[in-house]
Amino acid sequence: MSKIEEFRQIVEDQIQMLDGMKRPEGLYEPVRYVLSLGGKRLRPALCLTSAALFGDFSSAVIPAVGLEVFHNFTLLHDDIMDQSEVRRNQPTVHKKWDNNTAILSGDAMLIKAYELMTKSPVGVLPQVLEVFNKTAIEVCEGQQFDMDFEKTIDVTEDGYLDMIRLKTAVLIGGSMKIGGMLGGGSLRDCSLLYKFGQDIGMAFQLQDDWLDVYGDQESFGKRIGNDILTNKKTFLLITALNRLEKESKKELLDWIERKEYQAEDKITAVTSLFNEAGVSEIVRQKRDEYFFRAMENLEKINGKKEIKSELQSFAHKLMARAR
Amino acid sequence: MSKIEEFRQIVEDQIQMLDGMKRPEGLYEPVRYVLSLGGKRLRPALCLTSAALFGDFSSAVIPAVGLEVFHNFTLLHDDIMDQSEVRRNQPTVHKKWDNNTAILSGDAMLIKAYELMTKSPVGVLPQVLEVFNKTAIEVCEGQQFDMDFEKTIDVTEDGYLDMIRLKTAVLIGGSMKIGGMLGGGSLRDCSLLYKFGQDIGMAFQLQDDWLDVYGDQESFGKRIGNDILTNKKTFLLITALNRLEKESKKELLDWIERKEYQAEDKITAVTSLFNEAGVSEIVRQKRDEYFFRAMENLEKINGKKEIKSELQSFAHKLMARAR
Repeated sequence: MSKIEEFRQIVEDQIQMLDGMKRPEGLYEPVRYVLSLGGKRLRPALCLTSAALFGDFSSAVIPAVGLEVFHNFTLLHDDIMDQSEVRRNQPTVHKKWDNNTAILSGDAMLIKAYELMTKSPVGVLPQVLEVFNKTAIEVCEGQQFDMDFEKTIDVTEDGYLDMIRLKTAVLIGGSMKIGGMLGGGSLRDCSLLYKFGQDIGMAFQLQDDWLDVYGDQESFGKRIGNDILTNKKTFLLITALNRLEKESKKELLDWIERKEYQAEDKITAVTSLFNEAGVSEIVRQKRDEYFFRAMENLEKINGKKEIKSELQSFAHKLMARAR
Repeated sequence: MSKIEEFRQIVEDQIQMLDGMKRPEGLYEPVRYVLSLGGKRLRPALCLTSAALFGDFSSAVIPAVGLEVFHNFTLLHDDIMDQSEVRRNQPTVHKKWDNNTAILSGDAMLIKAYELMTKSPVGVLPQVLEVFNKTAIEVCEGQQFDMDFEKTIDVTEDGYLDMIRLKTAVLIGGSMKIGGMLGGGSLRDCSLLYKFGQDIGMAFQLQDDWLDVYGDQESFGKRIGNDILTNKKTFLLITALNRLEKESKKELLDWIERKEYQAEDKITAVTSLFNEAGVSEIVRQKRDEYFFRAMENLEKINGKKEIKSELQSFAHKLMARAR
């Protein structure tokens, strides 16, 4: 079992053991429900791995769980705002209970996340909280930009990249920086960890968008073209809208607005418009830019060799999914 | 100008100066809107007064603003859950904007509150955050109990009192305890401040409920009997439901369910049922119990005499409204 896998297990066990959270049932049952749905526990696992790079990871365990609780809080509230009905193959909280329950249980999770972060050793507590506060507010900013972008087709590529950076990548970076701090890493190394995490997060998100259109159906696991059918504003769509000539752009917008069509027809037509705009190559280039910068920054970190190589192979595996 | 009034002004100025919070507009405009609606700034003013009891209050200013931001976060999210349309004579955020905006801007306020609390001096930071975490989660628990109680008539007097303690009183207690810690008060004195604040909060809430029915219209300022007309679950109603004989209880429940009536008739009938149950005297006794215990605990605190007497007269003024 890899180190990261080991850390994931530690986090999973801790989540099961979270105390308090009994009465009122109506507040805490949804919290336990959300936390029991699983997930990759990526952020806390990367937090612990980052701590282990420099020394003992034990003081990072509880704050790492705090990062996972925070992440699940964002999913819970985002699901209300996006009216999503399913999360990890189970009904979302606002579906299983109601909106009020989802709002208040989410609030309780955000507070619980802070409670767990506060258990960082006093010596690094102010620094850890500074990173956490900044990350947490940026995630909200990212969600707001995302909702703003849903209402317009006028989104620049840079604006879009900044949105996904805030909405998803900073929390990976923040989790790793906090882990580094708790493990006793230097300021310089912790900053490099932040950059590594943020860039890997960006590369992963772009890869995920790319795979939806250009991936291999079987190894990707999800249905190809799903983002196209749901008109999801991915970096591919934004790039195409920004780069297509007038006529082709109009055609793309028509497909977005059309209500009746055969799924295969829409996927084929939109993919061909993406191809016309050179989207695949642009996205892969952007992805590689983030990926290679991440690997360069990881290289510069002064930490335990075996943990560094764990992070390297983790990054490679993340990108290797059905490329 | 009293000290408390002075502190209120300091908080007001700091709120105007809160930095950051620019982009995205859609996230931060509602935050500034809510914070600009005014209010008594009671919690931060009491926090600063508590700090001044022991020494220099200056390190408490920013955390005190954090307490006010937290309080306004709870109002913002509660207003969504309660579908309230007006707050401080202005449209609520979810009315002026929409639910999603109110959810996300509330989340940002909770994080901002923590950011401000984190600016406490390192020496007391863990203790301050411990009190704040506990208080914040209890406020959520109180809101959940409140929502649970809306769905049933089966609420005990003790259960009801515990709900208002969690929903409103603990934040007054917590604000004062945090202030005491930041001012350098002893553990014992800070605990006494917590008890004082919590009990005053309880006494005030009971007084407010009592005034709605038994107050003097002109000096109370609000319309007498409003809680009766809206079937608000106050301590008076809970007490009556728990103490009335079968027939009278049925009559009270009938009035609660009746859809068509003259306002004056309902107020007269319900008030007379309250009188039958001896509600007025029971509530005043409960209120006085809290009030006098609060004053006793204040007496025990070792702090500056002139600030203690400020707190005494503040407490008396709070209770003297149209008794």
